[in-house]
Amino acid sequence: MTEPSLDIVAIGNAIVDVISREEDDFIVRHALTKGGMQLIDAGQAEALYGAMGAGLEISGGSAANTLAGMAALGSKCGFIGQVFKDQLGEVFSHDIHSLGIRFETTAATDGPPTARCLIMVTPDAQRTMNTFLGASQFLPASALDLDMIRSARILYLEGYLWDPEQPRAAMRSAIEAARGAGRQIAFTLSDAFVIERHRADFLKLIDNGEIDILFSNETEICSLTQKNDFESAVAAVAGRVPVLIVTRSEQGAICVKDGERHQCAAAPVEKVLDTTGAGDLFAAGFLAGHVRGKTPVQCLEMGAIAAAEVISHYGARPETDLKALMGDLLA
Amino acid sequence: MTEPSLDIVAIGNAIVDVISREEDDFIVRHALTKGGMQLIDAGQAEALYGAMGAGLEISGGSAANTLAGMAALGSKCGFIGQVFKDQLGEVFSHDIHSLGIRFETTAATDGPPTARCLIMVTPDAQRTMNTFLGASQFLPASALDLDMIRSARILYLEGYLWDPEQPRAAMRSAIEAARGAGRQIAFTLSDAFVIERHRADFLKLIDNGEIDILFSNETEICSLTQKNDFESAVAAVAGRVPVLIVTRSEQGAICVKDGERHQCAAAPVEKVLDTTGAGDLFAAGFLAGHVRGKTPVQCLEMGAIAAAEVISHYGARPETDLKALMGDLLA
Repeated sequence: MTEPSLDIVAIGNAIVDVISREEDDFIVRHALTKGGMQLIDAGQAEALYGAMGAGLEISGGSAANTLAGMAALGSKCGFIGQVFKDQLGEVFSHDIHSLGIRFETTAATDGPPTARCLIMVTPDAQRTMNTFLGASQFLPASALDLDMIRSARILYLEGYLWDPEQPRAAMRSAIEAARGAGRQIAFTLSDAFVIERHRADFLKLIDNGEIDILFSNETEICSLTQKNDFESAVAAVAGRVPVLIVTRSEQGAICVKDGERHQCAAAPVEKVLDTTGAGDLFAAGFLAGHVRGKTPVQCLEMGAIAAAEVISHYGARPETDLKALMGDLLA
Repeated sequence: MTEPSLDIVAIGNAIVDVISREEDDFIVRHALTKGGMQLIDAGQAEALYGAMGAGLEISGGSAANTLAGMAALGSKCGFIGQVFKDQLGEVFSHDIHSLGIRFETTAATDGPPTARCLIMVTPDAQRTMNTFLGASQFLPASALDLDMIRSARILYLEGYLWDPEQPRAAMRSAIEAARGAGRQIAFTLSDAFVIERHRADFLKLIDNGEIDILFSNETEICSLTQKNDFESAVAAVAGRVPVLIVTRSEQGAICVKDGERHQCAAAPVEKVLDTTGAGDLFAAGFLAGHVRGKTPVQCLEMGAIAAAEVISHYGARPETDLKALMGDLLA
């Protein structure tokens, strides 16, 4: 087993976010689930985009956002995801490369256009996401750079991408390659509705020992375990993965590692503007600490600081110097 | 002469802005002129975009930004500009329609892609703009909706679009149509380098009485008149146009109308983040007041408030409720 040359390789949706501010009645009128993520087809995407207000476009995708945060914290990152050869694909590629992240997945030249996520931010700062998966859902296993995966300390997988068949198969191959090379696998549950659709698969991955680090929030861990309360849900999973992280919005986060539970408070935020990316950036801070050998509490604190930064502005990627925000934690 | 059904029709670049934060040395290294606008070709656009950091995309274009502000202030607006039938063209069209602005120029299906403006914002909040005109430079006179132009109280023209030949010819036809219908013509000088290239044309428009309302900033009026000091420059133009507005950044703005000079202070801003769109939104506030029959001082104050809003965040279009910010001015 050779020394890893990358800290992390992530497989995720290669998406451009389209963000607009909407009133609560927009969510009601279009029968959306506030705070959730739903998949939409091309027709729905067109109709919903037509109804949305003026927007801003910014590269997104859950795992890609996590890497953006990790790269800002000095981690060496690689990303695998499918864009189409079009303007939004070019925007996604440019942005991820400009962060110093390796990204070599060849853009598709037939099939649907680059994925976009239509995000409505309501006055309570919650985001309601509507994802047109486009090219992202056709990431073939053959597009994986297995050498890159084997060269990274951690393979990070995005639960959202478990929906479409091809990327799911690709992620299974990636797990095998990483396992074979003795690497760690981190997995984020992404969304309660994704879990509804894939609960059996996710539990099987856990019980087969294929997940070393599991990220979830309170709703997701309850959905996964079908428990109504947080403590029972945590108890039901904690012993089955080496590291479990559960984020709890303004109540902070916990980490259960080797049977021991750690926690941290949420980092202070002057004004929460847009919660998009909170979980992604929490994972970024935690994992950036993890690959530097920080203690669980330090990792949690780094996660909390990165999450606090991203919810203080629109868009799901950091806008200020994350390293500076970490202070002594990076010492 | 029939009663106008629109307050304003503008002809301008149909552009998507790509905004990134860069350090001062980026501007030096790429030999850019800080605070200015330069035209770049496809090759330069590719090279510069490759060197820029991660960006955010937001619809822009000087005159289109002005209309975005006016529409937010309740004015009835129409826009004419050329996009290509591609993703960025779709973004531009969506955004302008979602603001309630009439926009019916048919997207081009051959020629270059939709225009984009690569904007670097330095720590001093100044923007350096690099415009790839793309489809925008091929707005043909035949694309003008002359009935729409005749139906608007004001025809607003963007000096930037005087550079390419086809839109320049289109704007000349538009002036003729508006004049014939007894409408007012407003013109923004846009940029000192644009003036360097077209000084003779601009002075001729002025002296032929084809401009009723002229917008400029301090640098631009000095460039137009080739005077070194503000007062001499103002004196050289003031008598030649019915309404002259000159903005002076943190020193406020003046308006000379029928030989009488009015002024206002800059509106307070907590923190200037990005000056992109300051002039465009000043024009928006001023013209929204003008079409409501406000006094010159009230128009100036509305301009100052709209400009202050747009420089307090990234992007050149308003993000907060401009009407609310105007308070008693809209009474």
